[in-house]
Amino acid sequence: RLFGGLIRDVKRKAPWFWSDFRDGLSLQCLASFLFLYCACMSPVITFGGLLGEATNGHISAMESLLGASMTGVVYSLFAGQPLTILGSTGPVLVFEKILFKFCKDYSLSYLSLRACIGLWTAAFCVMLVATDASCLVCYITRFTEEAFAALICIIFIYEALEKLSHLREVYPVHMHSDLDFLTIYYCKCEAPARPSNETLRFWESKEVNASRVAWANLTVSECRYLHGEFQGPACGHDGPYTPDVLFWCCILFFSTFVLSSLLKKFKTSRYFPTRVRSTISDFAVFLTIAIMVLIDFLIGIPSPKLHVPHMFKPTRDDRGWFINPIGPNPWWTVLAALIPALLCTILIFMDQQITAVIVNRNEHRLKKGCGYHLDLFMVAVMLGVCSVMGLPWFVAATVLSITHVNSLKVESACSAPGEQPKFLGIREQRVTGLMIFVLMGCSVFFTSVLKFVPMPVLYGVFLYMGVSSLRGIQFFDRLKLFWMPAKHQPDFIYLRHVPLRKVHFFTVIQLICLVLLWAIKVSPAAIIFPMMVLALVFVRKVMDFCFSKRELSFLDDLMPESKKKKLDDAKNEAKEEELKLGKTSNMDIAKQSSDRPDPSEINLSDEMSKTTVW
Amino acid sequence: RLFGGLIRDVKRKAPWFWSDFRDGLSLQCLASFLFLYCACMSPVITFGGLLGEATNGHISAMESLLGASMTGVVYSLFAGQPLTILGSTGPVLVFEKILFKFCKDYSLSYLSLRACIGLWTAAFCVMLVATDASCLVCYITRFTEEAFAALICIIFIYEALEKLSHLREVYPVHMHSDLDFLTIYYCKCEAPARPSNETLRFWESKEVNASRVAWANLTVSECRYLHGEFQGPACGHDGPYTPDVLFWCCILFFSTFVLSSLLKKFKTSRYFPTRVRSTISDFAVFLTIAIMVLIDFLIGIPSPKLHVPHMFKPTRDDRGWFINPIGPNPWWTVLAALIPALLCTILIFMDQQITAVIVNRNEHRLKKGCGYHLDLFMVAVMLGVCSVMGLPWFVAATVLSITHVNSLKVESACSAPGEQPKFLGIREQRVTGLMIFVLMGCSVFFTSVLKFVPMPVLYGVFLYMGVSSLRGIQFFDRLKLFWMPAKHQPDFIYLRHVPLRKVHFFTVIQLICLVLLWAIKVSPAAIIFPMMVLALVFVRKVMDFCFSKRELSFLDDLMPESKKKKLDDAKNEAKEEELKLGKTSNMDIAKQSSDRPDPSEINLSDEMSKTTVW
Repeated sequence: RLFGGLIRDVKRKAPWFWSDFRDGLSLQCLASFLFLYCACMSPVITFGGLLGEATNGHISAMESLLGASMTGVVYSLFAGQPLTILGSTGPVLVFEKILFKFCKDYSLSYLSLRACIGLWTAAFCVMLVATDASCLVCYITRFTEEAFAALICIIFIYEALEKLSHLREVYPVHMHSDLDFLTIYYCKCEAPARPSNETLRFWESKEVNASRVAWANLTVSECRYLHGEFQGPACGHDGPYTPDVLFWCCILFFSTFVLSSLLKKFKTSRYFPTRVRSTISDFAVFLTIAIMVLIDFLIGIPSPKLHVPHMFKPTRDDRGWFINPIGPNPWWTVLAALIPALLCTILIFMDQQITAVIVNRNEHRLKKGCGYHLDLFMVAVMLGVCSVMGLPWFVAATVLSITHVNSLKVESACSAPGEQPKFLGIREQRVTGLMIFVLMGCSVFFTSVLKFVPMPVLYGVFLYMGVSSLRGIQFFDRLKLFWMPAKHQPDFIYLRHVPLRKVHFFTVIQLICLVLLWAIKVSPAAIIFPMMVLALVFVRKVMDFCFSKRELSFLDDLMPESKKKKLDDAKNEAKEEELKLGKTSNMDIAKQSSDRPDPSEINLSDEMSKTTVW
Repeated sequence: RLFGGLIRDVKRKAPWFWSDFRDGLSLQCLASFLFLYCACMSPVITFGGLLGEATNGHISAMESLLGASMTGVVYSLFAGQPLTILGSTGPVLVFEKILFKFCKDYSLSYLSLRACIGLWTAAFCVMLVATDASCLVCYITRFTEEAFAALICIIFIYEALEKLSHLREVYPVHMHSDLDFLTIYYCKCEAPARPSNETLRFWESKEVNASRVAWANLTVSECRYLHGEFQGPACGHDGPYTPDVLFWCCILFFSTFVLSSLLKKFKTSRYFPTRVRSTISDFAVFLTIAIMVLIDFLIGIPSPKLHVPHMFKPTRDDRGWFINPIGPNPWWTVLAALIPALLCTILIFMDQQITAVIVNRNEHRLKKGCGYHLDLFMVAVMLGVCSVMGLPWFVAATVLSITHVNSLKVESACSAPGEQPKFLGIREQRVTGLMIFVLMGCSVFFTSVLKFVPMPVLYGVFLYMGVSSLRGIQFFDRLKLFWMPAKHQPDFIYLRHVPLRKVHFFTVIQLICLVLLWAIKVSPAAIIFPMMVLALVFVRKVMDFCFSKRELSFLDDLMPESKKKKLDDAKNEAKEEELKLGKTSNMDIAKQSSDRPDPSEINLSDEMSKTTVW
């Protein structure tokens, strides 16, 4: 039946709607919202800046902010899984770049063509919803999911470090300087010795008489504007050496990472009552940001700051908030847009659904159920709206979503210190997501506060998010086994039942997939990255020939480690322990399935393991 | 009998002499020696520099290096407890300062008077050895010992941070600079607008014609030499702002601390075989220094480096390596020197013996016995030699000694990761101490290598030493209890038997003593600091009225926690557990005592607790 999955999703989620708001009234939600607001702001602004560069300002920071905020608010209110955080992803940026270049080369209106493609994509996505295509996510097993999540986390960490290292170019350092010559070092502006034709034309157009300009008195920006040259022993590659800023940024970056990690861990320390500890732990990142902003303000080194647009209007004056899908383009472009729209649909679908699978994974013990169809439907609707308004497109962002879920974990009030607190569940609600994006939309009005936030602090937060998202990924646990002598290895369930050699083999395959994905992601072919994730599903299928079904049931199964271990321990004494375990897990899954009458929403990894094991 | 204690010490230690060298053949000893060589160099040089400033170069870095090396070598070879590391202490510096000022005011020869005082002090110390006065250390209980050790550790940490913060003055930073004005910022040398009379006289003497000097072309040091003034927006309080150096130093400092702590902890990680892990852990600090020196070299920021004298000759040309104790001074100064020598004797005695007590504490499970009399005798002999040669005096340095002992800990090869390794004993030998001081003496010959070692890295090592020495001080464990809810408190034996209120009371008294000692140490009266440590012994005596003997036996007893706990656990079931515990401990101590027939060398804290408990 058409839209059968969507209707069931709506029916299932509707009864939870009010509780989604009631459950949001908690201090932890406030902490989560503040943390993620800070974490989301910078990528949205940065992405907007990059888009602005790529599209000559047609879509820039302001559009990005508005688009993210609108999409986020609507998604948080009506999506099937409001724990997912929407954000901007790399493939989308690559796609926009290619499209802009194409339009420039063929003198087409970029925004109009983009609106066509967006509307077609939205239509395709709605078709996917109508045909219940989201059921296909059942082929995304733990293997695929973890390889993808691990890759995104590593990219996150890599980008945080790269952004820091990029500051070396913006703020060059005079490395082998001699402190005794400080009185003699200088870097002055000078008239260019041999002005290029371009420079001469620029001077002419601005009516600048080069010989009359007091070059030596120009500031850095004036010198750059007038095409002057920097001369002197204190000059770097392009402009004067910048004292202190780079090292100060490094200090801010690593301090943020260390402090937020320490504050987060404070929950399991021995000091202060549990309530105080868990509050500090919840607010860890926000506290860190607040402390770091204060320190940066007091020290007064001009570190790079977060710049938020301060006026609510399109970046370019020649566009409004409504884009005509045809506009100045010939009529047939509307039909031609079908082809890129197909590519775009795969891109959106994969990016959205794999993150949704990660958020909905069994280990999170979500009680309010998932809603893949409804999720995709909301994304499609907002994609259409954004296209018509000339705003960027947003889909589920993996690391932000994992961080959001992690920040909403409810754990037992651990009484004994050092003891690992017991995981009780996730605070499933719509309030944090809603607040994050409402506040993001309002950011335009408090740029005066946000301009004090140094970028290196936010990079430090990214590093923290990347590193903390890596935890809980089994792939990394297995990777560590390579360096661990057998006697020191932890008591993982799969180590009990699968030979170490086979475990290592499984890990190596996953590692190779990861490296290949990485290579694609950084190559110019980045746009096919989501398709390559699909390829992982096939790799996983091929692995059925290398591993026995039983081995795969331990290595590639989403049932939480603790649960399996408990079962295993219980049955350990009996002679037919293996057989019994199989039955019990089977029963267990069957029970879980019976809780959810809809086949399209059954946890699909379980389904998968069913197919492979029994 | 005269020298009875000394003779017994010699007789006891002689049989161990060869084993003291055989036992030194171990990789751990190499690690310990490299670490402590790096750690000892900087204080000796710094202390020499400070003495040089205070005594107008009569005694400076070269003398300090030679003195430390000679005293160290002799002490390591022949002392009763070669694990003690000799170093320079604060009170000695204060004493030298006062003496130099006195000599200047009364036109006496500083070095000659100093030689007299030194010889008298040596004589007094030998008298103390002859009368077995070192037995008095039995009044130094855990209470005194820990208050002293805690204070010295805190001073160590404080000084490491202070040295770093002092760099702010040497390398001022342009705080609220505007990066856009970098082309306009400058700091040039100028002729002083109103040259002072002193400046005019200096110019005259050097035949400088101020109007002919090309002031603007002078480097920083030339400008300072010619009494120029620094002018410009990039000028700090006294000289140009220094870019990057301060922040780079901060990065080096904290990285050194964090990296050495992490590498040290690597022993209990899960990765790599035990052998690799423990080697990395042993070499932690040396590896850290090596890595940091390399990074500093590659980055090339001109951070302050360790400067070692490169010529083996007295700093001033008007003195040789032999000082006439009378020299140009009137004959009665020889007798007058008796009075400061008395003060000096108390100073040396307290500084030496309290550190010796800490090194010899029961918890270290030393097998080769102690030798307080022999220790003091060697210090006295070298004190005399140093005085006649015009070198500074060296006594046991607390933090360095604790660090030395800690770096020689033998622990069980811990099989289970995370498990606390069992402490097996200390590698008691003379090789590490000997090598440290031999290499220190040879440092003059490889200044070309040492000049690459940045000072902030060494400050970071100090911070590490201070912090790691704090561990294992029960006083800090008790201090932490203030912030710990009762249910989270660790299972300390004294918490089982003494009411928490009483434990806190004991801690508060100790804290007050510490604060008072700190106040004395930083006040101009620093010279009476060793005497004030004596006062602690009396405070402890007074506490007999506030606490029951049983309580004190738990709070102020040197028997290792683990041993007591084992005893306590064993007897826990029986009705008269307390009574039995008392007896058992008593028997235990009695057994220990019987191993050591000499009353003067019995562990004196045990003696003390015997007096108070039974």
